[in-house]
Amino acid sequence: MSKYVIGLDYGTLSARALLVDVATGQELAQAEFVYPHAVLGQEDFPGSSIGNDAALQDPQDYLDALSFTLHKVLETSGVAAQDVLGLGIDFTAATILAVDRKGIPLCFQEKYRSNPHAYAKLWKHHSAQWEADEMTRIAMERNEPWLGNCGGKVSSEWTVPKIWETLRKAPQIYHEAARFIEAADWLVWMITGQETRNSCCAGFKALWDREAGYPSNSYFAALDPQLADLIGTKIPHEVIPTGTKAGEVSVAGSELTGLFPGTTVAAPIIDGHAGIPGAGVVTPGKLMLIIGTSAAGFVLDSADQKMTGICGCVSDGVIPGYYAYEAGQSCVGDAFGWFVENCVPEKYAQEARSRGLSLFGLLDEKASALEVGQNRLVVLDWWNGCRSPLADYDLSGMILGLTLKTKPEDIYRALIESTAFGARAIMERYQASGIAIEEAYAAGGICRRNPFLMQLYADILGIKIRVCSSTQATARGSAVFAGLACGYYDTMEASAAVLADKCEICYTPNPENTERYLPLYEEYTALSQHFGKETKVMKRLKAL
Amino acid sequence: MSKYVIGLDYGTLSARALLVDVATGQELAQAEFVYPHAVLGQEDFPGSSIGNDAALQDPQDYLDALSFTLHKVLETSGVAAQDVLGLGIDFTAATILAVDRKGIPLCFQEKYRSNPHAYAKLWKHHSAQWEADEMTRIAMERNEPWLGNCGGKVSSEWTVPKIWETLRKAPQIYHEAARFIEAADWLVWMITGQETRNSCCAGFKALWDREAGYPSNSYFAALDPQLADLIGTKIPHEVIPTGTKAGEVSVAGSELTGLFPGTTVAAPIIDGHAGIPGAGVVTPGKLMLIIGTSAAGFVLDSADQKMTGICGCVSDGVIPGYYAYEAGQSCVGDAFGWFVENCVPEKYAQEARSRGLSLFGLLDEKASALEVGQNRLVVLDWWNGCRSPLADYDLSGMILGLTLKTKPEDIYRALIESTAFGARAIMERYQASGIAIEEAYAAGGICRRNPFLMQLYADILGIKIRVCSSTQATARGSAVFAGLACGYYDTMEASAAVLADKCEICYTPNPENTERYLPLYEEYTALSQHFGKETKVMKRLKAL
Repeated sequence: MSKYVIGLDYGTLSARALLVDVATGQELAQAEFVYPHAVLGQEDFPGSSIGNDAALQDPQDYLDALSFTLHKVLETSGVAAQDVLGLGIDFTAATILAVDRKGIPLCFQEKYRSNPHAYAKLWKHHSAQWEADEMTRIAMERNEPWLGNCGGKVSSEWTVPKIWETLRKAPQIYHEAARFIEAADWLVWMITGQETRNSCCAGFKALWDREAGYPSNSYFAALDPQLADLIGTKIPHEVIPTGTKAGEVSVAGSELTGLFPGTTVAAPIIDGHAGIPGAGVVTPGKLMLIIGTSAAGFVLDSADQKMTGICGCVSDGVIPGYYAYEAGQSCVGDAFGWFVENCVPEKYAQEARSRGLSLFGLLDEKASALEVGQNRLVVLDWWNGCRSPLADYDLSGMILGLTLKTKPEDIYRALIESTAFGARAIMERYQASGIAIEEAYAAGGICRRNPFLMQLYADILGIKIRVCSSTQATARGSAVFAGLACGYYDTMEASAAVLADKCEICYTPNPENTERYLPLYEEYTALSQHFGKETKVMKRLKAL
Repeated sequence: MSKYVIGLDYGTLSARALLVDVATGQELAQAEFVYPHAVLGQEDFPGSSIGNDAALQDPQDYLDALSFTLHKVLETSGVAAQDVLGLGIDFTAATILAVDRKGIPLCFQEKYRSNPHAYAKLWKHHSAQWEADEMTRIAMERNEPWLGNCGGKVSSEWTVPKIWETLRKAPQIYHEAARFIEAADWLVWMITGQETRNSCCAGFKALWDREAGYPSNSYFAALDPQLADLIGTKIPHEVIPTGTKAGEVSVAGSELTGLFPGTTVAAPIIDGHAGIPGAGVVTPGKLMLIIGTSAAGFVLDSADQKMTGICGCVSDGVIPGYYAYEAGQSCVGDAFGWFVENCVPEKYAQEARSRGLSLFGLLDEKASALEVGQNRLVVLDWWNGCRSPLADYDLSGMILGLTLKTKPEDIYRALIESTAFGARAIMERYQASGIAIEEAYAAGGICRRNPFLMQLYADILGIKIRVCSSTQATARGSAVFAGLACGYYDTMEASAAVLADKCEICYTPNPENTERYLPLYEEYTALSQHFGKETKVMKRLKAL
């Protein structure tokens, strides 16, 4: 009798469930639910002053997605709920809910329906920039030990700035909330009836460390005396590692999901991070690139290498037993999108149409016909600042080498090259800290769709890149955790070997191109050094 | 009884005559003749290997233009030839002809009809780059004193490289030529029967200096022993100053032109330089900007200030009695053209069409709506290298400060700002050498058509700019010389006061904007210093 696991992937605008055979990895069904309320903003709360940087969600959408997708995959596949051994969940983070003692979101209470702070603050809710900057400033003043683990800067996308914002702007919500909780952990609570916190979200988004725990109460008190007991009251101290069992489907959870009571629910993780086991990357030596509008580069290591210039290093952060290192590029697909939107002339649009190509397709074709270095351009890929290795969001993009002969495809290719140089800079930062990297893995729509770009990345990185071919690599990552947490597999390696994407598409560097890119990469590095460290011109321009 | 003068302006593709009342400056007639052969190139000489950088002209077109336009303005105005007191001529330069003892171009001989070197080598004939580079190299080795007067670098557009190219590639033409001569001086010869050389062409294009004369024979011998007697045989030593009379219309010249025999013909000058008196700039204290695809900035001074970073300083170079200083920007209108051709998205093209605007018109509208500094961009305007003050053609363009919010109009405005910063850098170079500048004058199609750009220039330069409103400012400049040379006026000031354009359109700097541009100009200056002097990244990219 076959057994199954389900991976459940909560993204920004929809959630997807994937039901696979636990013994073979074969996909039996998938289902998607688009959140009816999508992302809420100022316009949805006309009485409030939440502002244009707000990004909120209605958690009812999460419950509806849960119910719809799980019932749907069971129904589509014909699998009996009893044969589902485990459920794994990944979710955007930090996506923070204020809830009551039973876990009910405050926004479900009639009196708070019109208060934006009672809703889920989505990862890209950027209204808490002041709080994030203050957290950084005060942490630097106090020389907080955890600053080294988070790249030296607190992001407005993280947990505590969002909670502090609630305290400052909606104190009644702050005080009424029994807990503040990641949507990932909240969903597990709703399904199992048990409240837990996972090490992935806590480590990457809430400054938690396996040895040191959360920052000290005295730090939080220095932010605001009312935050002194945040940890221990509104956020419990306990954190469970990834790969473990968070709980079992309760009777109420069974009604909600259609799953059998007692079914294992794995500790959830962040959606971006689930792609790592989803691509089969569960051991050190591999650089995992997740390339989308922005990009992240992960590696695993047995030791804490204490390096600067990355976003975070979290023990049990992704794969249990390993330190997970995350570094990021603020702007990858977004830069390509910006270029196509703003910089491609009408004649190219006409040519693309007449030949039945997308603009991207036409640019890829023209750019791929160029030799390495033929564009004679170097770009700094900082359209959205530089996350790693400089952790400086006041930096901006630069194009150098323009002449009257420069064509749009020259700039487009240079833009792609610069993001690959950025990935190489991250790889070299890891290597310089003693982390061996033998090959790379890549996931994300761009990686699947754009062989030209992936070959260019392989040439510039100088190592093989294996690409995730599944559109559901993230949900597969959650399924890998389910396979381990339910006990069907003993190790992540064993679970991933069957349940992860096989990454059969492989790009091998052309050694001649790798060699020819070296001087260009050196220019990129020197320009990064100059504009990132030696001159503050970009900051002065931003400050105008 | 009214008297008249005629200004004759020979451009790259056509010649224009302008007949004005010498006492009032009133325009009575103008006529244009488009050269039937336009610009000849490799494709016109299929048997040759002149190459794609060639730009040649058939001097028969010059004679036909002379005859057509002069007869036409006499006929249109009804003015009798006897009442025309003088003719002034300006011409592109260096535009070099190989001629026989009587001044007949060698290309008029049947045996040389298919030899490209027998034709006029137009100013933009760029095939003699090797010769120009060798001239610079050898001059630097010999520490030639004139290097300081020409910005330290010989241009392939100048006289001697073109002649040396003829010697190297078509020795029979070189040896058969009795003279090599500027088309401007050749035309005077054809009209007057007297061979002369003008100080403007000789000084700006042939390394001549009023005190020192041409470079020494030993220098020319160092280039090639066969060039040892170039000066004195194929180019006479004598040079006449601008503002003087070159000769009088001969009987043969009268047949050709329709002018009365004995009519004064003024010493000709370079077309770009004729715009200076054409705008009424005949005394020091004024910065004359001629803005086209590239741009030039001229000033006059009583002394030779011996400065670096400009293109040339020539005594009697433009206005008799003054040193004329020329500095240049390699890429102004060309950069705007490049941008519109390569970087403006389809939606802008559609909006422009639907609103009946040109793309430039739409971009000007959008860019003019921005505040100073709102684009948060700094551009280095080196798409075609940097003529002044760096005299380095291996530099290239740069855009810095790009973000996901950057719009096409932000870049377009930054591009315009960068050319204005380039003009300011030239102005400051003059001022630093002790040349006072109180106001600016501007001529060129862009200046007439684009009030947004001119106001921006005034704001960035921080001084008033008076704009030439006539489309015939250059021909008016030649008329000013005719007014002086024929003796109707005693001084250039008197002649210009009546015959030059009145430059009644005036842009006054907005002091607040001037102030707000200062920090941006400082960034431009610092980036120029870094990329022009401190790092060689642009050269390395060009050399790829």
